[in-house]
Amino acid sequence: MIEFLALSPVFDTGFKLYRMIEVIKEIEKIRHLVEKKRAEGAKIGLVPTMGAIHEGHVSLIKLACEMTDYVVVSVFVNPTQFGPGEDFKKYPRNPEKDMRTIDSAGAHCIFSPEISEMYPGEYSTYITVEELTKGLCGRSRPEHFRGVTTVVTKLFNIVDPHIAVFGQKDAQQLAVIRKMVDDLNMTVKIVTGSIVRAQDGLALSSRNMYLSGEERKQATVLYRSLCMASEMAASGVTEPEEILGKVREVITGQDAAKIDYIEIVDKDRMTPVTKISDSSLLAVAVWFGKTRLIDNIILNGKNG
Amino acid sequence: MIEFLALSPVFDTGFKLYRMIEVIKEIEKIRHLVEKKRAEGAKIGLVPTMGAIHEGHVSLIKLACEMTDYVVVSVFVNPTQFGPGEDFKKYPRNPEKDMRTIDSAGAHCIFSPEISEMYPGEYSTYITVEELTKGLCGRSRPEHFRGVTTVVTKLFNIVDPHIAVFGQKDAQQLAVIRKMVDDLNMTVKIVTGSIVRAQDGLALSSRNMYLSGEERKQATVLYRSLCMASEMAASGVTEPEEILGKVREVITGQDAAKIDYIEIVDKDRMTPVTKISDSSLLAVAVWFGKTRLIDNIILNGKNG
Repeated sequence: MIEFLALSPVFDTGFKLYRMIEVIKEIEKIRHLVEKKRAEGAKIGLVPTMGAIHEGHVSLIKLACEMTDYVVVSVFVNPTQFGPGEDFKKYPRNPEKDMRTIDSAGAHCIFSPEISEMYPGEYSTYITVEELTKGLCGRSRPEHFRGVTTVVTKLFNIVDPHIAVFGQKDAQQLAVIRKMVDDLNMTVKIVTGSIVRAQDGLALSSRNMYLSGEERKQATVLYRSLCMASEMAASGVTEPEEILGKVREVITGQDAAKIDYIEIVDKDRMTPVTKISDSSLLAVAVWFGKTRLIDNIILNGKNG
Repeated sequence: MIEFLALSPVFDTGFKLYRMIEVIKEIEKIRHLVEKKRAEGAKIGLVPTMGAIHEGHVSLIKLACEMTDYVVVSVFVNPTQFGPGEDFKKYPRNPEKDMRTIDSAGAHCIFSPEISEMYPGEYSTYITVEELTKGLCGRSRPEHFRGVTTVVTKLFNIVDPHIAVFGQKDAQQLAVIRKMVDDLNMTVKIVTGSIVRAQDGLALSSRNMYLSGEERKQATVLYRSLCMASEMAASGVTEPEEILGKVREVITGQDAAKIDYIEIVDKDRMTPVTKISDSSLLAVAVWFGKTRLIDNIILNGKNG
C-alpha cells in the first residue's frame, strides 16, 4: 500500500494533463492570496456566481480575463437571497464540473466558502438599496436583493477587486448593485456581460435544468416576445401599454406559462416609464410549471 | 482695489503663523490625496466626527496620530442619523474653531463634505446591523444606527483607512460598528478611545452646551451613579436589578432628570445580562430638560 501511494504520482501523470485551478474556502486565505497578487501589480477581477456554471458564466469569466490579470470566481449558493419556499435546497450544485468549466474559461482561482464562513453565528448586518428593489423581482421576492447586496459587499470586501462582472440577464440585480456601489462610494468598477442564449433564444440560466421537455419548449416564447417588443419600439411605438399588451398576449398563448410580471421600466431606476425611450427596459418574469424564469431587453425606442 | 489684493498676502503674514490644515470638501479629492499618501507607504487613520470638537475628540485624534502616519478627521453632521424632531438643525456647528482644534491636535487633513456630496439626489442605500440596534439608543432612536453605519461605511470606502477611532462614550455605536466591520469583512481596524470627562465627571459631549447652568450641575449625577454601580459590582453584587434600582434612585433624585433607559447589557451583544460579569456594561440615557445625555461604564464584576 505504501509503495502504491509512493508511486501514485507517476500513475497520475496520465490523467492530470494540467494543474487544476486552486479552490479556496477560507476568507483569510483568499484575502491573503489576492493581496499578494495585487502587491505584484496584478489587476484583480471578480465574477460572483452561485455555481451551476453555464456558458453565460463562462462569457463573464472570459470578459474578466480580458480586462484583468487575476480572476477570482466565487461559487457560493447564498442562502440570504432565497426566500422561504424558494429553491435554496434544490439549487443545482456540481462543484467538480463547475471547477473544470471555470478552469477552462481561464479563471485563476475559485473562492468557494462554506455558509458558516460567510455567515457565522449571530450574523446581523444587511445592506438595502431601497428605491430600486420595490418593483419587479423585488415585489415577488421581498428579501432577495437584500441578500444579493449583502453577499456582494462581503465578496467585494474580501477580494477587493478592481472590476466585478455581472450578467445583464439579471438586469434589476445589476442596477441595484451599480446603485449600491455609487451610493456607498465603493471603488470597484462594475462591468456588464451580455445575455447568452441557447440557439432557440432561451436565456441561459442555472434554473433552466428544472424545466420539463414541454416547459423548455414553451419557454422560448420569452425571447420571441422580447424580440417582437423590440421591433415594435424600433418601428415607432412609444406607448408602453401597447407593447406590454402584445407581449402578454404572446406569452399567455403558452399554456404552461404563468406571468409573474411584464414591465417596461427605466433601466437604471427600475421604475415604470410612461413613454418608451433608449433607456427603457422590458423585463419579464414568467413561471413555467414550478420554475420561474426571467429575461429582458433594452428597447431601442426612437424617442430616446 | 487690485493693488490692495496684490498686497494682501503681506498684510496677512502677521496673522497666519503657520499653514492651516487642509480642508477638503470633495470625495474625489480626498480619495486621491489619501491614495497618494498610502502609495508613499503611510498608514492612514480616520476619526469620524460631527464637528463641535471638544477634548473627547482631541483625545481620539491624538490616539490616531500615535498609531498612524496620516490622520483624516471627517467633520460631517450626518442627517441620516437624526430622527424627525431631533436636533439636526440646531446641532452645534463651528467650522473655524473646529479647524483650529483639529489642527492643534495633530491631524493632517479635514474631510468636510456638503450633504449633497454624501447623499446626492435619489440616494437609496442603507446598512443595518439588526441585532445590536434594537435596545438602548436604538429603541428611542429607531433610525439612528442605520444612519451611523451607512455614513461610516461611506467614509471607510472614501478614505480607506488602516484604522478608525471611535469613542467609548457611544458604547452601542462602537459595538454596532465593530459588528458591521466583522459581518461585512471590512479590513479597517476599529480602535476605541476612552471617555474623556470634565473635572466634575460629566462625559464630554457636543450636546453638553445645550444644558442650562442648573441642568449642567444636575447632569453630574450620571457619572456619580456609574461610579456607585461600579463599586457595587466590584464589591460582589451580581444581580443587575440590585444595581439598576440604586442607579435609578440616585438619578431620579435630581428633579431635572428624566430617564430614557438604564440598562446592564453585554458590552458586545448589547443585550441585557442576567448576571454581572467583566463583559457587562452599564449604559444610561437621561434627559435633562430638552437635552438627552448618554454615558456608560464597564462593570468589573467579580464573576467575569
